[in-house]
Amino acid sequence: MDLLREFERQNPRALARAISLAEAGRGADLVRALYPRTGRAVTVGLTGPPGVGKSTLASALVREARARGKSVGVVSVDPSSPFSRGALLGDRIRLAEHFTDESVFIRSMASRGHLGGLAGATADAVLLMDAFGYDLVLIETVGVGQSEIAIAELAQTTIVALQPGSGDSIQVLKAGIMEIADVFVVNKSDHPMADQLRREIRSMMEMLHWTGWVPELVSTQALEGRGVDELVAAIERHVAYLNETGEIERRRRDAFSHQVRQLALGRLEERLDRALRAQPDDELDPYGAADRVVSQLWGE
Amino acid sequence: MDLLREFERQNPRALARAISLAEAGRGADLVRALYPRTGRAVTVGLTGPPGVGKSTLASALVREARARGKSVGVVSVDPSSPFSRGALLGDRIRLAEHFTDESVFIRSMASRGHLGGLAGATADAVLLMDAFGYDLVLIETVGVGQSEIAIAELAQTTIVALQPGSGDSIQVLKAGIMEIADVFVVNKSDHPMADQLRREIRSMMEMLHWTGWVPELVSTQALEGRGVDELVAAIERHVAYLNETGEIERRRRDAFSHQVRQLALGRLEERLDRALRAQPDDELDPYGAADRVVSQLWGE
Repeated sequence: MDLLREFERQNPRALARAISLAEAGRGADLVRALYPRTGRAVTVGLTGPPGVGKSTLASALVREARARGKSVGVVSVDPSSPFSRGALLGDRIRLAEHFTDESVFIRSMASRGHLGGLAGATADAVLLMDAFGYDLVLIETVGVGQSEIAIAELAQTTIVALQPGSGDSIQVLKAGIMEIADVFVVNKSDHPMADQLRREIRSMMEMLHWTGWVPELVSTQALEGRGVDELVAAIERHVAYLNETGEIERRRRDAFSHQVRQLALGRLEERLDRALRAQPDDELDPYGAADRVVSQLWGE
Repeated sequence: MDLLREFERQNPRALARAISLAEAGRGADLVRALYPRTGRAVTVGLTGPPGVGKSTLASALVREARARGKSVGVVSVDPSSPFSRGALLGDRIRLAEHFTDESVFIRSMASRGHLGGLAGATADAVLLMDAFGYDLVLIETVGVGQSEIAIAELAQTTIVALQPGSGDSIQVLKAGIMEIADVFVVNKSDHPMADQLRREIRSMMEMLHWTGWVPELVSTQALEGRGVDELVAAIERHVAYLNETGEIERRRRDAFSHQVRQLALGRLEERLDRALRAQPDDELDPYGAADRVVSQLWGE
């Protein structure tokens, strides 16, 4: 495949085209061909409520990684709103300083409409950037919905960023995001309510019983780059923990299983929706109708 | 069934037990038996970001409905966070004034772990309250995630509440919630930035091409009850529109289809997860592994 050859020649255009194919739900062949080359990149997920300054944090992390001589791929995920591409413009501007750096590859994902949905295309993009040879793959997600949680689970290390004075801690608490954080970041740490947010996070953490890694809490002022080195150090401690304990393998398996489940579920949903469209419009109750369509799918 | 007889005797304890069974994923028999009695209630969904004052709005709506002699069932939905029951305490307090009113039934849903998940149990609870005979069933959801959108779609009329000065409009935009709103509420309308939020909502609405009903925009100060009568009037206009155009039937069918799909999907996911657990731990790529498990499920 011409695209595959260009990909192997380290042509970034080939990577961009490969990710576009994945977004269109046609990434299977490439991922199959390139899968043996994956598993070398460090994958970091960065999530948190809108407005917390994730793109500024992402940009600062990229800068720090570049200063350490690492190449970086960034997958910026936004929801399926028809306007999200526009809404991302600001983020693109914040990341613009890296556009000219050929050791940095930035890609925003917008598509949802294929097997496995956004999570499927994002998982492909992460694998493709990994196979392309980037040392660090940063997965930036917007919001605290279930799909954002699922996407964050693709990463080996998940950073949950919060901002003071926003009620974010409650939001994160309610969304069940505490559980996925390896590192908490209090951004805009010069805010008068930053201390209160740190206290809230600590007290929330006390409600959970951690086994193994206990999430670290880092304060940053990403706009001025303050605290970013501590954040990178916390990430490195977590990566070291994963490697020393061998948990890195479990995380890779989990990410793999997650992607397989997403892909299989997408196929099942397609069959289900075809079968549902063919259902008669009769007086069954919901449970009876569900039983009927499932047994039809299985020819029982 | 004893429970069914007590339910038919209008014993609220029976309704509470029935919903608990639904939360445990064992509501099928009751829903089947009671389904013919459903379809009389007006179902209203109330959603929006945390902190917007949804529980205060819900309480005010209940008060207004009671003043008009309507009985009300409230389903308060919160995510699967282990702390959500605790986090709901404040909401419970805000609704407390109605606890002694036997024409008001308030139930919060916390469980996710069964076929169809939270949406499935919530759909059951709505059907059960409808069958029990409540005139209005109010579905209050927390957050703006995909599952909250799905739950709001159970309702005939969906209210999206926003608060000024919170960036909520952007959040709602990104979450793709614009599309599900029949009525927008700007709560805390005495906030200095309320006018700006109203402008933001109007300009966002111009980006969508509405066919049929165009969402109304209502301002409330729910704590003092201001604007709640306008909100109820907007809801009544939408319900009238649904009935005059016959779209009410389409909404009922959509809610039905949504629940059937959730139930069927839950069953498919159970089978898929059983099959995934049985997969060998070999060197397949994700797409190959997904193909294999799907074809195993279909014995192809």
